[in-house]
Amino acid sequence: MWKNTRFTDLVGVEHPLMLAPMAGPGTAALAIAVSEAGGLGGLPCAMLTPEQVEREFNLIINKTKKPINFNFFCHLPNVISEEADRQWRQRLAPYFAEYGLDPAAPSTAPSRNPFGEEMCRLMEAIRPKVVSFHFGLPDAALVARLKQAGCRILSSATTVAEARWLEARGADAIIAQGYEAGGHRGMFLSDDLATQVGTFSLVPQVADAVSVPVIAAGGIADGRGFAAALVLGASAVSVGTAYLFTPEAKVVAPYRAALAKAGETPTAITNIMTGRPARGLVNRFIRDVGPLSPDAPAFPHAAGAVAQVRAAAEAAGSGDFTASWAGQSAALARPTGAAELTRDLVRNCRSIMGVD
Amino acid sequence: MWKNTRFTDLVGVEHPLMLAPMAGPGTAALAIAVSEAGGLGGLPCAMLTPEQVEREFNLIINKTKKPINFNFFCHLPNVISEEADRQWRQRLAPYFAEYGLDPAAPSTAPSRNPFGEEMCRLMEAIRPKVVSFHFGLPDAALVARLKQAGCRILSSATTVAEARWLEARGADAIIAQGYEAGGHRGMFLSDDLATQVGTFSLVPQVADAVSVPVIAAGGIADGRGFAAALVLGASAVSVGTAYLFTPEAKVVAPYRAALAKAGETPTAITNIMTGRPARGLVNRFIRDVGPLSPDAPAFPHAAGAVAQVRAAAEAAGSGDFTASWAGQSAALARPTGAAELTRDLVRNCRSIMGVD
Repeated sequence: MWKNTRFTDLVGVEHPLMLAPMAGPGTAALAIAVSEAGGLGGLPCAMLTPEQVEREFNLIINKTKKPINFNFFCHLPNVISEEADRQWRQRLAPYFAEYGLDPAAPSTAPSRNPFGEEMCRLMEAIRPKVVSFHFGLPDAALVARLKQAGCRILSSATTVAEARWLEARGADAIIAQGYEAGGHRGMFLSDDLATQVGTFSLVPQVADAVSVPVIAAGGIADGRGFAAALVLGASAVSVGTAYLFTPEAKVVAPYRAALAKAGETPTAITNIMTGRPARGLVNRFIRDVGPLSPDAPAFPHAAGAVAQVRAAAEAAGSGDFTASWAGQSAALARPTGAAELTRDLVRNCRSIMGVD
Repeated sequence: MWKNTRFTDLVGVEHPLMLAPMAGPGTAALAIAVSEAGGLGGLPCAMLTPEQVEREFNLIINKTKKPINFNFFCHLPNVISEEADRQWRQRLAPYFAEYGLDPAAPSTAPSRNPFGEEMCRLMEAIRPKVVSFHFGLPDAALVARLKQAGCRILSSATTVAEARWLEARGADAIIAQGYEAGGHRGMFLSDDLATQVGTFSLVPQVADAVSVPVIAAGGIADGRGFAAALVLGASAVSVGTAYLFTPEAKVVAPYRAALAKAGETPTAITNIMTGRPARGLVNRFIRDVGPLSPDAPAFPHAAGAVAQVRAAAEAAGSGDFTASWAGQSAALARPTGAAELTRDLVRNCRSIMGVD
C-alpha cells in the first residue's frame, strides 16, 4: 500500500490521486469513473446552478457510493462597468464582424457565481465527503457550516503565503498549484503573475510550511509526475489535463483537436478568456490579443463577449476563440478511458516507487 | 550505486549532480569542492578573459584531478546604439542622481563575450572533460574542435524544440532548464517568456524527446528535488542556488543578505539587469523598472549603466540594484560548505530513493 496515507485517510479513498475539477469539461461520468477506480473524483460546480448541481449529484449517487469532491469558485463578485464592456467589445469588434455578429447582442455566457448561501444549503443536504474551492475560501461562517456537515475542505495555493492563509482558516488539505497547471490560477492574495511558482519549487516549500496534507497540482500527467510529486513531499496529486483526453470529459471538437496537437502547441497563461489568468493552449485569439491584456474586464466578465465569438467560431469548426485550458504536460497524455487512466497512473507510480 | 549511470559514465564522475555554472559567484574553490565531493564542478567563464580562465584553471588543476566543466555563453554579439544607451541611462537617471553619479561616465561592467576562437584554443590546450554552453551552441566548427579535444558538450534547453536542436548539433547531454531556475534563461530559439516551461513538465518531455542524457535544472535545492528529478526521467541534476549559500561562492554582502531572506522575497524573471531574461530575488530596481522593460538594451548592454548604479549602491550597503540571481527554491537552502552540501544532497537523495 501507500507509505503516506495522510490524504487517503483524510478523504477515505484508496489512492492518493484526485481529479482536478475542470469547470466545463468535468462531468458526472468523469467523477464517477475516477472515484470508482479508487481516486477522488469531483464535480466542478463553478458554472452550474444549484438545480444543475443537484441533478449531477443524483446521477453520481446512483452510480457510486465512493467519496466525491464538489468544487466551487469563491471569488469576490465584480460588477462590470458599461464602459469596460464597451471597450472590450470594441477590442473584439473585428471578430464580431468576421462572424457577422451583433456586438450589442446580450451575452449567453454561463454564469460563474461564487459559492454562497444557496449552494451551502445544498451541500448541507448532500453532505459530500469533500468540498473544494478555487480563489481562496468563502466566508468563515460558510466554511464552518460545511465542516459541521462533515465535509473536508480543500483549496488551492499558488504561494507559500496562500497555503499558510488557507491552513489558518480551516483548510483540511492544501492543493499546491504550480505554474505548470492548466486552467485558472487559484491565486488570491496577489495578482502578480511574475512571482508565480513552479510545481517543483512550490510543493516542498508548501509541505514544509503547513501541517495539513499537501496535494501537488500542475504538470502531473503520467506515473513519473505522480511519483515525483510524492517524492517532493506531497501526500497526493491532482491530475486534470490528462483526463481531458478521456471520453468521459465533455470537450468540444476544436478543443479536442487542439489537445491532440499539444506536442506542437505551447500553452500560456492568459486573462483574455475570462478576465482571470488561466493556462491554455495558445490559439489565434491569445496570439492576437493576449496572452495578457489590460483591456480584459474583470473576472468573469471578459467571458461574455468572447463566448459570442467563440460560439460562432466553433459552429464554423474553428477553435480560434476556444478556451482550450491545458497544463504544460498536456503532450504527455494519450486518449484513454478515465478508469483506465486512473489505474495506469497508480500502477506506473507504484512501479517507479517500488511499492507493491 | 546509482541505477541510472548515463551521466556519470558520460563525464566520469561519481554522482549524477553538477554544479550549475554561475557567472559571478562561481569560483575555482567552489568547482574544486564539488568535484572532489564526487559531483561535476564547473567554472563559469562568461565574464572572464582567456587569461583569467587560464589562471583559474591553474588553481583548479593544482587541487583536483577530477572532471571539471568550463561554461561559456554563446549568444550572438549585439552592438548597442547610442540612442538605446542614451534612453536607458535616461530611464535610470533618477538613480544616477540619487548616488551622485555622472550618467555620461564610461561603464566599468565586466564584458560578457560569447565563446570564440581564443577561448576555443585555450580549451584545446586545457582539454577539460566537459565544456558547457548557455544560449545554444557556438559555430559547428568550434563544437567539432572541442569534441576532437575530447570534451563532452553540454547545453541548456528551455523547451523540447531547443533540446532537439541541441541534440541534432552534437550536444552529448541536455540541461533541461525549467522555469524555476535562477539566473539567465538559456532560451535561444524563442524569446517568448509566456511559453517557458516548469521543471516538472519540461524534464519528462525532454527525456522522451532526445536520446542523450538529460540533466534537470531549476528548483532543485535539496534531496527531495534531486530524487524527484531522477524520477521524472533525468539522468542527473544541476544545482546552482543552493551553492550560493556556501563560503566558496563569491557573493557580495547585499546579495548574501537577500538570499538569507529568500523565504520572504519572491523571485521574478527580469531583463533589466543585463538585457536578457534572468531570474533573481525581487528588489527595488526590479519593482520600480521591471521585472520586464522594453527600455532595457539588448544583452549584455543593459548591464553597463546598471553596474555603475549598483556599485555605488553596494558601496553604501544597499542591494537595491544588485542582480541577486536565485531560483524559486532558494528558501529551501541553508548556509553550509560546498563539499558538505554536495554530500548532503547525495545522501538525502539516496535515502529517499532507497538506494544504498
